[in-house]
Amino acid sequence: MDATGSTEKNNPANDDVQEAAVLIEQIGPTRRLIMNRPKSRNALSEEMMAALALELERANQDDVTRLIVIAANGPVFCAGHNLKELTAHRADKDGGKAYFAMIMETCSKLMQQIVNCPKLVIAEVQGTATAAGCQLVATCDLAITVNEANFCTPGVNIGLFCSTPMVALTRNVPRKQAMEMLVTGEEIDSHTAKAYGIVNRVVPKDYLRLVVDRYCEEIAKKSPAALKFGKEIFYQQVELPLSDAYDLAAKTMTENMMAADAEEGIEAFLEKRKPEWPCGS
Amino acid sequence: MDATGSTEKNNPANDDVQEAAVLIEQIGPTRRLIMNRPKSRNALSEEMMAALALELERANQDDVTRLIVIAANGPVFCAGHNLKELTAHRADKDGGKAYFAMIMETCSKLMQQIVNCPKLVIAEVQGTATAAGCQLVATCDLAITVNEANFCTPGVNIGLFCSTPMVALTRNVPRKQAMEMLVTGEEIDSHTAKAYGIVNRVVPKDYLRLVVDRYCEEIAKKSPAALKFGKEIFYQQVELPLSDAYDLAAKTMTENMMAADAEEGIEAFLEKRKPEWPCGS
Amino acid sequence: MDATGSTEKNNPANDDVQEAAVLIEQIGPTRRLIMNRPKSRNALSEEMMAALALELERANQDDVTRLIVIAANGPVFCAGHNLKELTAHRADKDGGKAYFAMIMETCSKLMQQIVNCPKLVIAEVQGTATAAGCQLVATCDLAITVNEANFCTPGVNIGLFCSTPMVALTRNVPRKQAMEMLVTGEEIDSHTAKAYGIVNRVVPKDYLRLVVDRYCEEIAKKSPAALKFGKEIFYQQVELPLSDAYDLAAKTMTENMMAADAEEGIEAFLEKRKPEWPCGS
Repeated sequence: MDATGSTEKNNPANDDVQEAAVLIEQIGPTRRLIMNRPKSRNALSEEMMAALALELERANQDDVTRLIVIAANGPVFCAGHNLKELTAHRADKDGGKAYFAMIMETCSKLMQQIVNCPKLVIAEVQGTATAAGCQLVATCDLAITVNEANFCTPGVNIGLFCSTPMVALTRNVPRKQAMEMLVTGEEIDSHTAKAYGIVNRVVPKDYLRLVVDRYCEEIAKKSPAALKFGKEIFYQQVELPLSDAYDLAAKTMTENMMAADAEEGIEAFLEKRKPEWPCGS
Repeated sequence: MDATGSTEKNNPANDDVQEAAVLIEQIGPTRRLIMNRPKSRNALSEEMMAALALELERANQDDVTRLIVIAANGPVFCAGHNLKELTAHRADKDGGKAYFAMIMETCSKLMQQIVNCPKLVIAEVQGTATAAGCQLVATCDLAITVNEANFCTPGVNIGLFCSTPMVALTRNVPRKQAMEMLVTGEEIDSHTAKAYGIVNRVVPKDYLRLVVDRYCEEIAKKSPAALKFGKEIFYQQVELPLSDAYDLAAKTMTENMMAADAEEGIEAFLEKRKPEWPCGS
Repeated sequence: MDATGSTEKNNPANDDVQEAAVLIEQIGPTRRLIMNRPKSRNALSEEMMAALALELERANQDDVTRLIVIAANGPVFCAGHNLKELTAHRADKDGGKAYFAMIMETCSKLMQQIVNCPKLVIAEVQGTATAAGCQLVATCDLAITVNEANFCTPGVNIGLFCSTPMVALTRNVPRKQAMEMLVTGEEIDSHTAKAYGIVNRVVPKDYLRLVVDRYCEEIAKKSPAALKFGKEIFYQQVELPLSDAYDLAAKTMTENMMAADAEEGIEAFLEKRKPEWPCGS
């Protein structure tokens, strides 16, 4: 295990230390980052955020990896910030202010790292996602969950409004529904979460892993160049006025047309055969 | 009754004059502003808008009040602008232009007063909400309605497109659905309004008051400081680019952590007891 | 048939040449532009885009026309870009880059022409809408489709991410659902398209034409002045901050109040009679 708590699974050097905060599994082009602090409900502690940030960067750099899944061990997907860790810093000279600022900034950076990562990031949500955990699901490009999972932003119950989770939430969920989640702190079930736009699909628990693997397998068949072009401007254009968005998108389409993948893909389509993508990931 | 037509309910001094345009009821931290011109279908006349603006400001200033409910007497929630009042001013030297401009500005200010009010404003919609009345529902932070209520923006039927209602509508409702409401003027029922994002909940008519009271009671249990932090940046961050939104939200989270409510709330959570909020409303 | 491939239906001068790319039918104030290249699945070839642009402009200029319907002949509504036409230009000296840029710009301009056209544009979607065809549906102000229609943005399957379709899609569809359509390329059925916000209504195939005609007839009863005021600022205000949006909308309402249609419409309403609109279209 390195300083960040992340590790490769089955690394015998790790057997004598605490298990890694984030376990890694690679199946073909899909890399699964598995949050592995079930006892602390996979809270976004300093250790967990550092491990996720590092593993996202590693997955981004890795040539084989094309899809990144964020999954979790234990009954809870992610319970948000680590409150014990935060509270301990109230003893600091400044009452914890500098520490809290650092944690909130680190968390906001992690979320934006997911958005800015050119590879798709998919949340595999096996259980409840709370506060910054709900934000993590909302932030991923895609999310698949199970019938039993619940979603909530209950900061109001502990005097700490889910302000940063709100940023991700309000970019997925209609306003009144987002406001209700934020001010009541009430749980919504996974089917409501789908209706609200937080997740894409809800499957039976026993099928979750199977479905996510298959979903990734299907997406991995697509042109790597096309997917990269696409995600890069998805979040850019959505914030632009219509005419600027079209200028950017039209320029991207032209560049994409000049890439070898488009040439091969369109030829294959016209010849009614399967494409063989020349571009690497 | 004062110049604005607002008053305290059961104030004996008012018995000899027309009933107030807006009645006030206080139950604990919840202040209900009840539009009280059922004969003119609670239209947003000059009198009604002035009364609502005044009572919103009073409720905002009042230390006991934490939640503001906008309700209505009679079968109609609110029928939009007062067309008789507007038409009367066609006799003005300028054909009414200055008056119309004043009314539209007053109405837009009232709507933004709701958005900018740091206390939550909840619409209790017992009947049809039309045009600027539908805008009023869309503008409130949260809304609960009944099976029988209808919603529409029928300005096209009278030659006056619902342009200002459109501002609130398009910030709640997907584009094509908003456009359809605006150009057909057709009524949608309350369940469609929920699906579109105009309201949060639909309940049987006999339960409306009960449900809203309970809803407010639940929200009033939450930390006053957290709710204040939250609403203030909800509407700010939603208009910002992602990175600016996160900068604002992370800063707010840090300030919120330094507030006494968060200290008490997190401690109570870790000690598995109910919090006692030190902050006032 | 003129250079652009557009024509009036039943124009005997056209009998000896290829049928027009876009057929025109006028029923009262409704002008139907019927894409008429069923064999090439109404792909947005140069010819088709030029014909649509020309006919949209003609419809816009025409005094009788108040509503524009974009329909299609054949089993497919529109299959997106014409891949054969694009591929042929790979033989150009620059590998096709200038041509691709021109096509993408032309397509983006066509879509923005629909948005900027002051008359309502309604998609009548009788069959599958793919890639830029799906974009065309998403771009129209309103859309009615049939149970059998499918919608998809499958550019990833041919190495060409649907970047410009994404611009229209993400302004109609929640983010995660839009992202899923874009990266899986999977078809969604018409009822899912309605839930996502791509279309307004889904009707049985045999009723499509009937329903669209009736829909247009209803909208055509509304005040021409009001509809014009409305569409013009719909897409403007939706991109503005709330206070700017209200400033624009309140100003528009005042101008609209001064138009003869509003005077007649409000008078008629108060007198409980049908309005007779004095304004032309």
